[in-house]
Amino acid sequence: MDELSTRERIIESSAALFNTYGYHACSLSHIMEATGLKKGGIYNHFKNKDEIAVEAFNHNYQRVLRRFRETLDKVSTPTEKILAVVDVFVSFIDDPMVQGGGCPIFNTAIDSTNTHPALKEKARESIIILRNYIEIKLKEGISAGEVKSDVNIKQMATVIIATLEGAIVLSRVDGNKDSVEVTAEHMKKFITQSILI
Amino acid sequence: MDELSTRERIIESSAALFNTYGYHACSLSHIMEATGLKKGGIYNHFKNKDEIAVEAFNHNYQRVLRRFRETLDKVSTPTEKILAVVDVFVSFIDDPMVQGGGCPIFNTAIDSTNTHPALKEKARESIIILRNYIEIKLKEGISAGEVKSDVNIKQMATVIIATLEGAIVLSRVDGNKDSVEVTAEHMKKFITQSILI
Repeated sequence: MDELSTRERIIESSAALFNTYGYHACSLSHIMEATGLKKGGIYNHFKNKDEIAVEAFNHNYQRVLRRFRETLDKVSTPTEKILAVVDVFVSFIDDPMVQGGGCPIFNTAIDSTNTHPALKEKARESIIILRNYIEIKLKEGISAGEVKSDVNIKQMATVIIATLEGAIVLSRVDGNKDSVEVTAEHMKKFITQSILI
Repeated sequence: MDELSTRERIIESSAALFNTYGYHACSLSHIMEATGLKKGGIYNHFKNKDEIAVEAFNHNYQRVLRRFRETLDKVSTPTEKILAVVDVFVSFIDDPMVQGGGCPIFNTAIDSTNTHPALKEKARESIIILRNYIEIKLKEGISAGEVKSDVNIKQMATVIIATLEGAIVLSRVDGNKDSVEVTAEHMKKFITQSILI
């Protein structure tokens, strides 16, 4: 195993561990155990746990981004894209992105809020990127005559993210997908009946 | 300070610390520092950190319950009670229940999902109690002719909790109440337009 892949192995293992246990509860011993590496083997590649956490977040963020792209690229109209965002959230429960379950971005946001400002800021920025994406699609939908022109775009983008992320947490806690399924069904019905023309 | 109040002081401090840092990241040293007690002074009252965590959760749960009761007791009809539930969620941001912010029940649920099954189960049961309460009020609303008879009660109760809890997390991460405010406004409008007769 060359140097690059050892680094990647540390990042992948840590991304799972941070998502499962949270930043503070995930110790270097956890990472050593998961990778089979000694302390020195890990610190050859990273300055400290902080640097591993940031790289683990970037790794998860890229994977989340890829999942959004894969689903969103399959459809073309603004309406389809907005409804596909709901499907991506459902997929976080149907086909978990990472060990520990849930949405790794939201989990990081929650876990780091009071304990790791830099990591919280990264998670917050990722959520803003998704919020902006939904806002753009709603605007395009209005221009295309698919979305009602009086829809409060900022509000709707926030509501879609809050609702689905909240449901993912409920499903993660319940250990089944009921909450995400009924919430996604509700959200699609709401979008279709109240947002679309 | 007598024995009872020392025990209470440990519970109160720990409830804030667990909410801020999470169960695993909150160490006995944190509790010692916050209470000004030595290890022995804490272990006079509790077997271990686990017992403190469960008592801290019970303490927060009772406070959350009291806040719900105080707001819900002010109104009388099923419709008013359902809308008041939304107000209680907003109050978690307007007037935080506990240091660290957010909803202490939801925070515990998230924090303990992969790390502390007994605590997760307690948080999960508390969420079920709220879900059942909303379901009962929706049923009463149907009987009273206030709520449409074809409303999917189980779905609506889940959606209300998921949406507001998700918004609380967004507001906690953003450090402002925008997300909770716009989401509560949306939820009240949705309830009034789509659920009520």
